[in-house]
Amino acid sequence: MKVTQPMKPNDLADALTALREHTPLVQCLTNIVVAEWTANVLLAVGAAPAMVDNPQEAGRFAAMAGGVLVNLGTPYDETARAMHLAVAGAKLLKTPWVLDPVAAGVLPWRTQLAHQLLRESRPTIIRGNASEILALAGGAGGKGVESVDSPDAAVDVARILAKQQQSVIAISGPTDHITDGDRLVRLSNGHPWLTSITGGGCALGALMAAFAAVVPDALVAAAAATATLTVAAESAAQQARGPGSFAVALLDELSLLQPADLADRVRIT
Amino acid sequence: MKVTQPMKPNDLADALTALREHTPLVQCLTNIVVAEWTANVLLAVGAAPAMVDNPQEAGRFAAMAGGVLVNLGTPYDETARAMHLAVAGAKLLKTPWVLDPVAAGVLPWRTQLAHQLLRESRPTIIRGNASEILALAGGAGGKGVESVDSPDAAVDVARILAKQQQSVIAISGPTDHITDGDRLVRLSNGHPWLTSITGGGCALGALMAAFAAVVPDALVAAAAATATLTVAAESAAQQARGPGSFAVALLDELSLLQPADLADRVRIT
Amino acid sequence: MKVTQPMKPNDLADALTALREHTPLVQCLTNIVVAEWTANVLLAVGAAPAMVDNPQEAGRFAAMAGGVLVNLGTPYDETARAMHLAVAGAKLLKTPWVLDPVAAGVLPWRTQLAHQLLRESRPTIIRGNASEILALAGGAGGKGVESVDSPDAAVDVARILAKQQQSVIAISGPTDHITDGDRLVRLSNGHPWLTSITGGGCALGALMAAFAAVVPDALVAAAAATATLTVAAESAAQQARGPGSFAVALLDELSLLQPADLADRVRIT
Repeated sequence: MKVTQPMKPNDLADALTALREHTPLVQCLTNIVVAEWTANVLLAVGAAPAMVDNPQEAGRFAAMAGGVLVNLGTPYDETARAMHLAVAGAKLLKTPWVLDPVAAGVLPWRTQLAHQLLRESRPTIIRGNASEILALAGGAGGKGVESVDSPDAAVDVARILAKQQQSVIAISGPTDHITDGDRLVRLSNGHPWLTSITGGGCALGALMAAFAAVVPDALVAAAAATATLTVAAESAAQQARGPGSFAVALLDELSLLQPADLADRVRIT
Repeated sequence: MKVTQPMKPNDLADALTALREHTPLVQCLTNIVVAEWTANVLLAVGAAPAMVDNPQEAGRFAAMAGGVLVNLGTPYDETARAMHLAVAGAKLLKTPWVLDPVAAGVLPWRTQLAHQLLRESRPTIIRGNASEILALAGGAGGKGVESVDSPDAAVDVARILAKQQQSVIAISGPTDHITDGDRLVRLSNGHPWLTSITGGGCALGALMAAFAAVVPDALVAAAAATATLTVAAESAAQQARGPGSFAVALLDELSLLQPADLADRVRIT
Repeated sequence: MKVTQPMKPNDLADALTALREHTPLVQCLTNIVVAEWTANVLLAVGAAPAMVDNPQEAGRFAAMAGGVLVNLGTPYDETARAMHLAVAGAKLLKTPWVLDPVAAGVLPWRTQLAHQLLRESRPTIIRGNASEILALAGGAGGKGVESVDSPDAAVDVARILAKQQQSVIAISGPTDHITDGDRLVRLSNGHPWLTSITGGGCALGALMAAFAAVVPDALVAAAAATATLTVAAESAAQQARGPGSFAVALLDELSLLQPADLADRVRIT
């Protein structure tokens, strides 16, 4: 199952090509803040979003979707129940799924929910900032949705968590770190404005679910999603005056980004 | 009640003039993905949106509103109950209402909800893509929120459904088809980017509710909403680089669109 | 506690400087329509938004946040329960909180919810249009979320309500009126496009919670929020063609606005 050869920029280009060929259906159980933004990011890149997040439909839909995103940004009783069912549906049909444990470690209810979901089914990818990843691994918490811990500090913990969960762990930050426990990929594209708009990280989790639907190696999927978002962000920043115009330009650039440009511009080690 | 004379472009211009004179209050029970976008589309065109979608208030507000939109994009137990009550309130006060059966046919729960609402009160207009209209009429389903059936194939079914439900049926697609069972209108404005942003169709349903509030002939209301959105989309596309700037320009163009230009530019048969 | 010296433009500039130094964590219990927009406005100005609005977490988080916004735009059973708990948490830890009673007076359920919250804890600031403020004070209602009463007519009522509640009352309109019962501040910046996009008023309430987190005088906090939004709106309008580009430019201008410019350009009496 595991591909152990080193990742090449062309692997990321091929992943973007595959995404656009297959238009994967991505089920998003996400928060009310970024639902529209997430859908627009997925559409811009070439995926097909579907926000099916009620208990009556979530499990069944997870079996139809190419990838599933579970984002804990604004959980409610009903959507939390839907998350359990979506994860069960994904497990049954081996649909790749991504856990984005927003603000885990800050608040006990959602931290417990994240741990429950981890026990119920192995996520293909777990994406968070350093604080959230540390919280999943049992460490200290953060301040709201902003990370107070550095990605570097979390990398060692992420390796252990990756092996333990058999998941790829992606730690977002100025440099993004992605590991499957054995391999570690660092990506250093992006722009500070990605943190000046809401949903930069949430969109990244959704993109990972889209790439995981079309790429068998989850490490490549997570890296391709990260590279696609952060390279497009660099282009967007060049045309923006502030966070408002940046967000608009980011959607444009996600749709315009060519696989060959992605391979040329990604800074990966 | 029924106007059987052929529809003229000036009818659509007059509808837009009426909308801007009356600023109809449009109650939207819609999904969490497009709620903001829908409100902004309604404001841009000149209507007054109000997202009242809880069971305590939905029925009462439907009696105060000029038009009601019921969109099944992300139904929950509580909003589904509110939909039943809004439809009852609309029926009682003869408030025009629009059903947008998002992803009907794909998932049993919402398909059943759509059928229940149809039985409870005749919608003024039913708007969907070909798959959704076929699903309401008892046919096959689609793939998520994207249509897999062609509008042409659904037109005959739509005519029958329109007569049976005494509703106007609007099938969205590259060419939009609108029928009341007797008359059939085809509109062929628009731009592919309308499907590259989330909520293109959802906004169209909301605009239909706004026009239905000010235009007695529901076929004219549905056609005026379609023409307004798709003609504005053509202007917006000329100023856009991708889906992000297209969505921004679309709101601008909806507010700038003049009734005379609408009549000049609409392609209607 | 009360500062009775007259407010000077530099007080508002200092407030903006303080906000950017402290990056206050603002908990928003707001409506599904403007959640993303509100978060982006807060990020653009320099605050840290967190939309924690479920009953399991809202009370605890209100004790961690610098300011809390309670906005009644789309209340549900679960979020209404969260509002009670957030208000209790804010009271316990003396966290400043802002009540935005959207459409109070129009619908009994949310009007009653607003009155309950008022009884449970004194809001630091109450922000609404004239109709909403009159409704809180026991007067007549409005039409949906649009105000039908003039701000001038509501000022006398607002003074009484401010004394009775020991809250600052902010009445939004072409001229904004803010009073703590003794002092009355009028601000007359802004642009009509602020009412052509959804969430202009909702964002203002959120900004007030952000400023109240860093400024002890709630009258100054409310005025600084109003000045920041309306001065930025004037800059944004100069670059916009319509409501779509206005909203984008507004986020840019909120991030670009310098405290000295705010003091220069505010029209305050």
